[in-house]
Amino acid sequence: MKFPSVPKDKKIDLHKWDSSQKELFPAGKEEAQAELNQLSLRIAELQKCLYAEHKHKVLFVLQGMDTSGKNGTIRNVFQAVSPQGVNIASFNKPSPLELDHDYLWRIHAQTPGKGEIVFFDRSHYEDVTAVRVNKLMPKSIWSKRFDHINAFEKLLSDEGTIIVKFFLHIDKETQKERLLSRLKEPEKRWKFDPSDLVARKLWKNYMEAYEEVLERTNTAYAPWYIIPSNHRWLRNLIVAHIIVKTLEDLKMSYPEAAMPMDEIIID
Amino acid sequence: MKFPSVPKDKKIDLHKWDSSQKELFPAGKEEAQAELNQLSLRIAELQKCLYAEHKHKVLFVLQGMDTSGKNGTIRNVFQAVSPQGVNIASFNKPSPLELDHDYLWRIHAQTPGKGEIVFFDRSHYEDVTAVRVNKLMPKSIWSKRFDHINAFEKLLSDEGTIIVKFFLHIDKETQKERLLSRLKEPEKRWKFDPSDLVARKLWKNYMEAYEEVLERTNTAYAPWYIIPSNHRWLRNLIVAHIIVKTLEDLKMSYPEAAMPMDEIIID
Repeated sequence: MKFPSVPKDKKIDLHKWDSSQKELFPAGKEEAQAELNQLSLRIAELQKCLYAEHKHKVLFVLQGMDTSGKNGTIRNVFQAVSPQGVNIASFNKPSPLELDHDYLWRIHAQTPGKGEIVFFDRSHYEDVTAVRVNKLMPKSIWSKRFDHINAFEKLLSDEGTIIVKFFLHIDKETQKERLLSRLKEPEKRWKFDPSDLVARKLWKNYMEAYEEVLERTNTAYAPWYIIPSNHRWLRNLIVAHIIVKTLEDLKMSYPEAAMPMDEIIID
Repeated sequence: MKFPSVPKDKKIDLHKWDSSQKELFPAGKEEAQAELNQLSLRIAELQKCLYAEHKHKVLFVLQGMDTSGKNGTIRNVFQAVSPQGVNIASFNKPSPLELDHDYLWRIHAQTPGKGEIVFFDRSHYEDVTAVRVNKLMPKSIWSKRFDHINAFEKLLSDEGTIIVKFFLHIDKETQKERLLSRLKEPEKRWKFDPSDLVARKLWKNYMEAYEEVLERTNTAYAPWYIIPSNHRWLRNLIVAHIIVKTLEDLKMSYPEAAMPMDEIIID
């Protein structure tokens, strides 16, 4: 399967970027679901080995507009993995203590240690998108952050962290459908937040902010993938494929027993 | 008083760098002590205002060979400040959990928030000196760290942290005297650590490592000062002067009461 990576040194226009792309998996939804189940089993195997080897640190970053499916992606792709094997760090509105520090302070604290996989559900990229679009900081502040972020991710990478970043791309029409369905279903209604409508009004500004993110922070050591996310099954399938490839590329193996096998006597 | 800052873009030779420099304060030890007492009262005043204003974050980094007086400097310079006003973060051997993360992980966690002063007693600079000299990491790893460190300190600075770094410079003879006195006095004997002798044997290598630190990480946003530290009274006096100047440069003032004074009725 071809992964939709982000071209280097090119202008990115998210309005023209197809967020459906069903042609990437012509066999369709049911086949995709069967393949996803297989992939999630493979991810569970790879996670166990990662934990045992205690060598690599793995960080997946998820960004996207409301209803793009950050939670759903994690739930589906990691369906077979023990919850012990994956930490989800959700970055909502910063607390007063967090606001007293630099914006990477709370982020750095949640980065994975050896043998760990961490998912960032939102991340430091809010500090150059939401912060920018809602004018929470002047440009003189947020414009410096692209360099900080690249340097921060370079540090993590140089010190042994594998970083992969996903932008879950939906179009505005898809968001409308999903927000409406949230309102229709009593069990989903709690998810509806009036501030989502504010963000929706600023859609164009958000896309501009994300375009700059994708252009400026798509590095060899922390690449972005733009995931067409209008179809949940396709979104999950692509993310699962990328995660399997990322983990397989580590060429992991289980460590040997701590002493030679023929010397171990259990009486 | 002239502050012994570090020249930019110049080779630094610490063996030729005078670690006595009594001529910086010809009036001598007793006068210095009297002046230090005044300065420490001034620091206590400034710290109260810093706390009340809740705006600036202040980080002082202390590095130096064993017996150079990192603890003594903090104790003397902050003698008048409430212990609540200053956090001391001591970075000894990293724990297994810390070693599972990048070397700046534990450092970042201890950086000051708004209204706080933090002293680093040792710091991330151990990760390019002790780590290097003791060959705990290959050069391919530690040589990348100068860039990480500059970028990290730039992040802190851009986001509102004032950073000042002190290298407490003693010569090898002074260390010998101080180690011998530790052994002579029963109350100091516990401070003697056989590993100090290992570091002492590697003195030349440590100086080389510190020279590279001083050459490569002496930035406008996080400057180094080389403090002549053979004489404790001179060391304390210079550090106190630099701290007073650093805090006065912030031009702080107490915030107004939260409501107009004439509207406050306490019955």
